[in-house]
Amino acid sequence: MEQKNVSLQTLRRLPVYLHYLRTVQEQCVNISATAIADKLGLNDVQVRKDLASVSGSGRPKTGYNTLELLQQLERYLGCGSATSTVLVGAGNLGKALMAYSGFDDYGLKIVAAFDNNPALIGECVSGKPVYPMEKLNEICKKQNILVGIITVPATVAQDVCDILVGNGVRAIWNFAPIILRVPPNVQVENENLASSLAVLSRHWRSFGPNTD
Amino acid sequence: MEQKNVSLQTLRRLPVYLHYLRTVQEQCVNISATAIADKLGLNDVQVRKDLASVSGSGRPKTGYNTLELLQQLERYLGCGSATSTVLVGAGNLGKALMAYSGFDDYGLKIVAAFDNNPALIGECVSGKPVYPMEKLNEICKKQNILVGIITVPATVAQDVCDILVGNGVRAIWNFAPIILRVPPNVQVENENLASSLAVLSRHWRSFGPNTD
Repeated sequence: MEQKNVSLQTLRRLPVYLHYLRTVQEQCVNISATAIADKLGLNDVQVRKDLASVSGSGRPKTGYNTLELLQQLERYLGCGSATSTVLVGAGNLGKALMAYSGFDDYGLKIVAAFDNNPALIGECVSGKPVYPMEKLNEICKKQNILVGIITVPATVAQDVCDILVGNGVRAIWNFAPIILRVPPNVQVENENLASSLAVLSRHWRSFGPNTD
Repeated sequence: MEQKNVSLQTLRRLPVYLHYLRTVQEQCVNISATAIADKLGLNDVQVRKDLASVSGSGRPKTGYNTLELLQQLERYLGCGSATSTVLVGAGNLGKALMAYSGFDDYGLKIVAAFDNNPALIGECVSGKPVYPMEKLNEICKKQNILVGIITVPATVAQDVCDILVGNGVRAIWNFAPIILRVPPNVQVENENLASSLAVLSRHWRSFGPNTD
């Protein structure tokens, strides 16, 4: 697997290219950076630079071989590999993530969920078992879990994070609206819906109140 | 409402401060930037700068009055106001968002959802009706909807976006993994789960394959 030094912004766009190429791979044998840029509303210099991180450059006039570029992106993004992960907090958001099939595409496989709600424990959500919190230690150790997803309320998210880290988890995808404290060797990716809303709401509130 | 020029990064942290202050407001009459920074794992200079966007500076030795700062944050973030919004795509993710109560806190109220799946139409999810796509025009216009949430598959997201924009929607919260094309007066906030995963997976894949 290539491990060039790719910027976060580029890395965030790669799944968008991948998704687009999948939709056109049957129609287009070759595709140019300009065509991709145009379709996705991006700058073509940007697209060329992004794609150079995972592929050679496109040929003049012809562009990239679509299938080849697609496979390079898939390899780079780890599609098809499978890293086992656990999800803690099987509420609505947790269930949505458990049901989402797109994660397989990025090498992530949720093997089990954990919750302290007796009504959920023992249930099977989208084919994944929901266990009581007490089993978290055991499953993490037995299955050598390196990635954890946190979808519990903010008040208990740090506790859950500590348990995960204590069991060897090294990458955390956090949906709780708090800043988690982790050791330097653990990476946290925050998916703070409230933060996105704060950004968006600054815009919509500039319209003034709804009239209904 | 204050409309100082606040950076996106600051804006993203404000909900985190708000959440933290709510958890301590009963115990702490006053709170210092240093205490907040320490608890949230942030730099105290950063915290002071962030809070200066919504409040005066804290008093030396005493810090901020907790309740006052809390109310300033709430006002700034539009808590308690209510902007009506529609959600298109009532699948798992859509349902999770419909069930999430935290949005009220940021002045967002989902009034209806839309889907083309006959099994969902006529259902009520977390108290919100699911209508057929054909009713989207009518509801947007009647209720003067300015904010739309897109939780449909990527292949139809642009079409949905066009319908929303055509009906006067000016701010879009997009969960589909594509870059939407919108006129300059429409703001899009992307919540691309695949992009976050790409960032996180670069880290976890550096550990090597799971051993199970």
